Amino acid sequence: MAVVGISLTNDRHPANVIYNKNNLRQQVEVFAVNGRGGVFQGETVYPRVSDIPKKMDLAVVATRAESVPDVIADCIEAGTGGAVVVSGGFAESGRNDLQEKMVSVSREAGFALIGPNCLGVFSPPYVDTFFLPSERIVRPQKGRVAIVSQSGGVLVDQMIKFSEEGVGLSLAVSIGNKALVRELDLLRYFSTDPETGVIVFYLEGFGKNEGREFVLSAAECPKPVIVFKSGKTPGGTRAVSSHTASMAGDYQVFSSVMSQHGVVEARDEFELISFCEALSCYEKPIEGRIGIITGSGGHGAIAIDACLSHNISVPMLTEQDQVEIKKMVSPRLQHIASFNNPIDLTGSAMDEDFVGAARFLSTK
Amino acid sequence: MAVVGISLTNDRHPANVIYNKNNLRQQVEVFAVNGRGGVFQGETVYPRVSDIPKKMDLAVVATRAESVPDVIADCIEAGTGGAVVVSGGFAESGRNDLQEKMVSVSREAGFALIGPNCLGVFSPPYVDTFFLPSERIVRPQKGRVAIVSQSGGVLVDQMIKFSEEGVGLSLAVSIGNKALVRELDLLRYFSTDPETGVIVFYLEGFGKNEGREFVLSAAECPKPVIVFKSGKTPGGTRAVSSHTASMAGDYQVFSSVMSQHGVVEARDEFELISFCEALSCYEKPIEGRIGIITGSGGHGAIAIDACLSHNISVPMLTEQDQVEIKKMVSPRLQHIASFNNPIDLTGSAMDEDFVGAARFLSTK
Repeated sequence: MAVVGISLTNDRHPANVIYNKNNLRQQVEVFAVNGRGGVFQGETVYPRVSDIPKKMDLAVVATRAESVPDVIADCIEAGTGGAVVVSGGFAESGRNDLQEKMVSVSREAGFALIGPNCLGVFSPPYVDTFFLPSERIVRPQKGRVAIVSQSGGVLVDQMIKFSEEGVGLSLAVSIGNKALVRELDLLRYFSTDPETGVIVFYLEGFGKNEGREFVLSAAECPKPVIVFKSGKTPGGTRAVSSHTASMAGDYQVFSSVMSQHGVVEARDEFELISFCEALSCYEKPIEGRIGIITGSGGHGAIAIDACLSHNISVPMLTEQDQVEIKKMVSPRLQHIASFNNPIDLTGSAMDEDFVGAARFLSTK
Repeated sequence: MAVVGISLTNDRHPANVIYNKNNLRQQVEVFAVNGRGGVFQGETVYPRVSDIPKKMDLAVVATRAESVPDVIADCIEAGTGGAVVVSGGFAESGRNDLQEKMVSVSREAGFALIGPNCLGVFSPPYVDTFFLPSERIVRPQKGRVAIVSQSGGVLVDQMIKFSEEGVGLSLAVSIGNKALVRELDLLRYFSTDPETGVIVFYLEGFGKNEGREFVLSAAECPKPVIVFKSGKTPGGTRAVSSHTASMAGDYQVFSSVMSQHGVVEARDEFELISFCEALSCYEKPIEGRIGIITGSGGHGAIAIDACLSHNISVPMLTEQDQVEIKKMVSPRLQHIASFNNPIDLTGSAMDEDFVGAARFLSTK
């Protein structure tokens, strides 16, 4: 990986942050690039990516916007695998010309470019192009959820939530202005990525016809696709448009179309993480007949309310079944627990009691 | 405080857990009681509460159900302030007779009794009658929210959430079978308690006419009252009735009546904690014109969607206001932040920038 834009004087420059964290903590060989060359931390700084004596898989570009099109042209020339452009100062600041120039050279060369105005990719355990120092970022473990976000801030925040809930990520991508690589490209990529089981998008808006293509591809995708959308209200639309210069569209239409095509819509950040957690365990439709095992009668009641209000059934158990389950738990619970569904093992239950009850239910 | 039911042979007995944690960690003088007397950890074990040479403010009773009515009669005799009965084995196990006996002596004497079949009270920093060892319980800081729960398990779980979100409690009460002290009594108590600013109930069901009285009292209460209810669905009703032998009632009727009387209903556990947090800061109605300051454009869009979808307005700012706010933040943000509402200070903003923008908005 090459990091373009290393500063020899400011160690808090985004390029330096990205260089340092990957060099110290990730399983990647990192090269420093800066137009003026020199030496950084005892290592050669290459003036251009094409000066590095190896072919790069990835260039992370954090130079001023004006110089990015030339850097990209040089990467293409050097046979670099692709680029993440973290620099801002493109379409979101009125410089559509710069953005278009960069995109047209990339498109012509079939060169993959993420950004600009983004955090890029977090691909555990290989690379992490987020320009946040290691101590300011919480990183979930490796797992089976791929997340794509139009907002870097929302992505960083979701990573904290994934980490807290113990849900692992296969890859996280902040697409920023999504000048070239867009949601649709990533949806298609993740559809066949063997490391990804669930695909989730934080969306702000689509270009013309792009939403239609996205939803048709999602409908054909063999993996669960979850979408969390902002810009649902006129005010949200206004906020989105000043944020990443995209059109939010009509939310009601969006929402119904998603639902008709089997895309799971998360209404808020809590649903997003819950859906990811559940769908990473159960990727195929389940029958929706739920057994509830709890250590507290209150939680049993809350859980059954939640199931029934979503038309998921919680069947009663036969007398015979209840007798059988009773045999699966410790004698000291047999007279205080209740064995109908929900099975309330009480606060005195230990792990093995939950396992015993679950083992019986799983045979029904 | 007296703890009745101390075991000299089993240190994991609930009475011992309660004695130990209060003796070691709370600001309370604790006395051990057991019908057979003896010595426990070098201290006298009194055969009866009336044998203790001081008047007790509170007796925590964890003996077998059959002996509880006598223990209560003895407490009344000894002039004890009140009792928490943690023992189970009453109405929830078909022993209505024992429960009624205990209640009738208490009622006659004007004696306050919490439980049975409950965890009792957590009153920081004085007493904690929850029979969970200190290492198995997460306790929030002292604060202004009083919480009353018909389920001990739900209460313990909520205490973890309060702690995680940094919302403090004035008092937590697990009422269990609520044989004597019920929601209505606690609502009235907290209405005038100077340490409580927000009152929250986890409800499973009410006795006949009890719901009506509760809602009328809540309507007159000068403090915000939040309710989270289970037993909303036929299955939930069934679960509730096997849990604490109470009637869940018709949920739709309940919900509309609560809303008409200004009671805040939390639909789930996430709303419960959010409402507590917001209402402990703003106890009086606010105008509902919201200014949003964010470090990420995505979160600004999510926040404005959330406000507008609840009919809370997020007014545009005038050009003049935007110029003024710009002056309140660091020069390095002035060309990358956006100053309309939401104000997006970007990921480069520091605490002082948020404070500056907030200071300006608070004058509008």
